[in-house]
Amino acid sequence: MINEVNRKYYDLRIEKIFQHLKNHKISGFMVLKDENIYYLTGFYGKDSNSMLLFTGNDVHLLVSFIYAEQAKKSVDNKKINTVCCRNNIYLKLIEILGNYNIKTVGIEGDNISFKDFSRLKKMLTDQNKKLIDISGPVEKLRTVKDQIEIFKIKEVCKITDKVFKSIIDSGALGVKDLSEIEFALKVEELMIKNGSGGKSFETIIAYGKNSSMPHYSPQNKKSEDGLILIDFGCRYHNYCSDMTRTIFKGNRKKNDKFKKIYDIVLEAQQVVLKYCREGVSCRQLDDRARNFICSKGYGENFVHGLGHGVGLEVHEEPKINAESKMVLKENMVITIEPGIYIEDFGGVRIEDMVLVGKDKCELLYDSTKEFLILD
Amino acid sequence: MINEVNRKYYDLRIEKIFQHLKNHKISGFMVLKDENIYYLTGFYGKDSNSMLLFTGNDVHLLVSFIYAEQAKKSVDNKKINTVCCRNNIYLKLIEILGNYNIKTVGIEGDNISFKDFSRLKKMLTDQNKKLIDISGPVEKLRTVKDQIEIFKIKEVCKITDKVFKSIIDSGALGVKDLSEIEFALKVEELMIKNGSGGKSFETIIAYGKNSSMPHYSPQNKKSEDGLILIDFGCRYHNYCSDMTRTIFKGNRKKNDKFKKIYDIVLEAQQVVLKYCREGVSCRQLDDRARNFICSKGYGENFVHGLGHGVGLEVHEEPKINAESKMVLKENMVITIEPGIYIEDFGGVRIEDMVLVGKDKCELLYDSTKEFLILD
Repeated sequence: MINEVNRKYYDLRIEKIFQHLKNHKISGFMVLKDENIYYLTGFYGKDSNSMLLFTGNDVHLLVSFIYAEQAKKSVDNKKINTVCCRNNIYLKLIEILGNYNIKTVGIEGDNISFKDFSRLKKMLTDQNKKLIDISGPVEKLRTVKDQIEIFKIKEVCKITDKVFKSIIDSGALGVKDLSEIEFALKVEELMIKNGSGGKSFETIIAYGKNSSMPHYSPQNKKSEDGLILIDFGCRYHNYCSDMTRTIFKGNRKKNDKFKKIYDIVLEAQQVVLKYCREGVSCRQLDDRARNFICSKGYGENFVHGLGHGVGLEVHEEPKINAESKMVLKENMVITIEPGIYIEDFGGVRIEDMVLVGKDKCELLYDSTKEFLILD
Repeated sequence: MINEVNRKYYDLRIEKIFQHLKNHKISGFMVLKDENIYYLTGFYGKDSNSMLLFTGNDVHLLVSFIYAEQAKKSVDNKKINTVCCRNNIYLKLIEILGNYNIKTVGIEGDNISFKDFSRLKKMLTDQNKKLIDISGPVEKLRTVKDQIEIFKIKEVCKITDKVFKSIIDSGALGVKDLSEIEFALKVEELMIKNGSGGKSFETIIAYGKNSSMPHYSPQNKKSEDGLILIDFGCRYHNYCSDMTRTIFKGNRKKNDKFKKIYDIVLEAQQVVLKYCREGVSCRQLDDRARNFICSKGYGENFVHGLGHGVGLEVHEEPKINAESKMVLKENMVITIEPGIYIEDFGGVRIEDMVLVGKDKCELLYDSTKEFLILD
């Protein structure tokens, strides 16, 4: 079922890019990011160095020979001409562009290295063509999710809820004595058991003081009393989820300070969730959480942005931070993840995903945010 | 023990970069790639957008506030000035560079996007400084491994051997009825059990016809008779391994064609292993395997390069393919992985890691390459 529906959406998205190019009078455009190519064609060659070329009314998908079979099986749009490259993909590109009388070609300047851009620019100069930076049109289109995407994202969030429930249910029995790295693997096992097609990023399990490093990697560290920060994400038909919960392990009577921090983070999130809707700027949203945490005396300890878009990539536009210039729109999907990190003590982060609506936002998780204690 | 030894090596490597810059009369240089920064400092902030800045005789490590604690704990070189950035890292960079009377600053042009390069160039122009592309000095240094690296790589290869042995030992019992995705997870479990600090890339398990796609991702596909391609890698103190074995599942009497392909790939590998040593060009090495496979009539089916360097990254320089301009040197570590892929039939790849020596190469794995049959 999903595949049938997908086709229609891929075609629609291709049309939208053509429309964008037409509006901006751009006659050639190269898409490089794997997720952007997948979004437009259905072919997902992770790290495959593929390219989707729009020229005139044509679309060419250039893939290395290694991905030829996979591309053929994934792409079902007759409009797309799949080209297999035995050697350097730029040579094939130059060959194809030679057939078109265009003067200027755009490329995703944020998805190509300076070195490659320079190399390609030189090759195009020999053809009297100019290479220019056109960053972001596909990423921008991707910020607002269409119906099939929302369906898939809701599914991946349901799976994520199930995984968290399984973690908690198995808590007392299964995970209590695992090292961080074993716990992370256990979470990944539970993902697969609950229908996830893999994980969307490296699972973070941080015990005790380690939880004060927001981007910690699990180590061979045995369990100890204190906080346990669990940050993980699932995949469903290539769509990602991202969830963080922080739980407590140890003596119920010795958790006052942890609970105090926890309650501030939770309240910060609730303040933001009430405020999150179309028309609010990403910066305003970040401000709300930051001001609240500042007012409780922990401003210095909220060391990252409030959230980010989620979709085909676990981190995508819009960024929800103090520097963002974007404004929320209906059907954006973002995380809301305030945190407080205290060196040599630990960190608390609570992260949910929401679907932005016209007048409110819809929480995409059902998982408890109670202060859970494993003892 | 390892940490003590590491420090000495980090310091030595920093000196080598200073020497390189001096030789090329470069007074400022920015290192961006996470693995390069780790190689020089001991701080590994995966996707952290950190920067290591060489100016005059000073080294500054610029990290986002999120990574401040981690950086402080990882870096033990008094020469390195760790700078935490609350906002945009470029602003801090400009501030630091303002203290130095230098006209030209180099940056790793292959590790920065065209868009970011352009932005930074503009910021530096306001300071009368010129930004230039200096790609590759750290990557080049990293191609030849020093003693501590060789030690770690040999360890990770030993772990990899153990994992493969565990897969085979558990074969008849454990993995036979698993889906590709469950099998991949099982392999990852065995990695952790055998002392790996995680995996070095997404494990590939491809059943039957799926094995004809070299960069396949495991699916929810149940086991079937035919080839099983297993491509996985471990980690040990951030060093990677990469191994592929192809085994057969099914009726012993119905494997003639599979075995024929298998034997060609294995022989191609053996031809190359005998020839691999310092002074041989990467292109020559690739040629040897390709010519052999061509002579057997499967030239069209060997659709990727023969191998690649392995170290902190699972794919690094030198590339072993027809376009490479590099020549093998003593203490490079590379993979040798010929393959034959036949659409609607399946693929065979056999991949080992070797340490290049003056007169021969040392095979870093001990795992069997017999044609194994699960039945």
